[in-house]
Amino acid sequence: MSVTIMHVKERLEADNDRNAAAVRALLKEKNIFLVNLMSSPGAGKTTVLVPTIHVLEKKYRVGVMEADMDSDVDAKTIAEKTGAQVIQLHTGNCCHMDAGMTMDGLQHMDLDHLDVIFLENVGNLVCPAEFDVGGALKTAILSVPEGDDKPLKYPLMFKRADVVLENKADTAPIFDYDFDRAENNAKALNPDLVFFRISALKGEGMDSWTGWLMNRIDTWRQA
Amino acid sequence: MSVTIMHVKERLEADNDRNAAAVRALLKEKNIFLVNLMSSPGAGKTTVLVPTIHVLEKKYRVGVMEADMDSDVDAKTIAEKTGAQVIQLHTGNCCHMDAGMTMDGLQHMDLDHLDVIFLENVGNLVCPAEFDVGGALKTAILSVPEGDDKPLKYPLMFKRADVVLENKADTAPIFDYDFDRAENNAKALNPDLVFFRISALKGEGMDSWTGWLMNRIDTWRQA
Repeated sequence: MSVTIMHVKERLEADNDRNAAAVRALLKEKNIFLVNLMSSPGAGKTTVLVPTIHVLEKKYRVGVMEADMDSDVDAKTIAEKTGAQVIQLHTGNCCHMDAGMTMDGLQHMDLDHLDVIFLENVGNLVCPAEFDVGGALKTAILSVPEGDDKPLKYPLMFKRADVVLENKADTAPIFDYDFDRAENNAKALNPDLVFFRISALKGEGMDSWTGWLMNRIDTWRQA
Repeated sequence: MSVTIMHVKERLEADNDRNAAAVRALLKEKNIFLVNLMSSPGAGKTTVLVPTIHVLEKKYRVGVMEADMDSDVDAKTIAEKTGAQVIQLHTGNCCHMDAGMTMDGLQHMDLDHLDVIFLENVGNLVCPAEFDVGGALKTAILSVPEGDDKPLKYPLMFKRADVVLENKADTAPIFDYDFDRAENNAKALNPDLVFFRISALKGEGMDSWTGWLMNRIDTWRQA
């Protein structure tokens, strides 16, 4: 990679950090907890979101920003299946959300009537990890069929995340997936990382995850 | 996204196109067929490569460029299990290979003793699709557990690919994966797209894929 590209990248990162600080200040003022939800394509972001929102919307007013390169399939699913306020962001060929795009999205939401916002990032285990969007919680979904070696191969995501949901956990025997191996590799990068083994489709492990999440939300909003 | 970023991106794309033309000229001169192998994390790029190389190395001298953000797990696997010439490229936090990085990699290979090179790209269904590396064939792996809606959500990969390997095909019933739906959605973007339904671990469908690939290689090398 040429030196020119590196300079560009550093400048983009500095811009992003400034924008992330602005997002953080706005959300603190409005007392809105923003969750940045990241994973590979097809790991189950939308499938996890729907039952998570079902639990959270008993207590909070929930919004969702759906970032997609092109389609609006996921936004429609969320709007049909939950009571959440949903907006769709088309990123074109852009492979991640950054803080500037997040701020643009927030301007289109009714922030005076929201307590929690989920940003469903573009399906990508690489680039979204590099861009702080100004949220309160970074959640990564690791899909069991992808294999337990993913923390070794995509270390930045596991360094930056606060919590990892190991989804499709019921298929672990088929894919020879070793939970301890995955978790130990990730903890070597990030000792404070929290894990939940879940199957969003079957409902397994969802109570532990949503209970933990609500505790984080309450602590942050009361601070 | 700001106008500044778009300008940067256009400049990067123009640089890449120039570098891709240089890679293409070099490989034509050396008569080496370069396969750009792309997929999401954990879709099975390495698992497909090993048996593919086993078949190809009976006829061709095979090389592999392993692009990884950090680890060298895959390069070691290929080196242990096949006779291919393997080099490892660390991309750092860069989420894709571009043509300049590909040229750097080629400089470290013994091009006078190779007929076919596989570039195992960074696991990412988004960014690698944007960057032509100068190869003769773009191969995308779609892992069945990711779901049959991926062509709708990540259209660029399916627009740009020449061939799609639907891997882990044996798990389709578990994930409610509809091959026709996936293929029709992808063909709507790219009518010439070729599909193989395979299970690299179990060997299913591999003869059709490798037979087709060898035919493409021979046609290209004799042109």
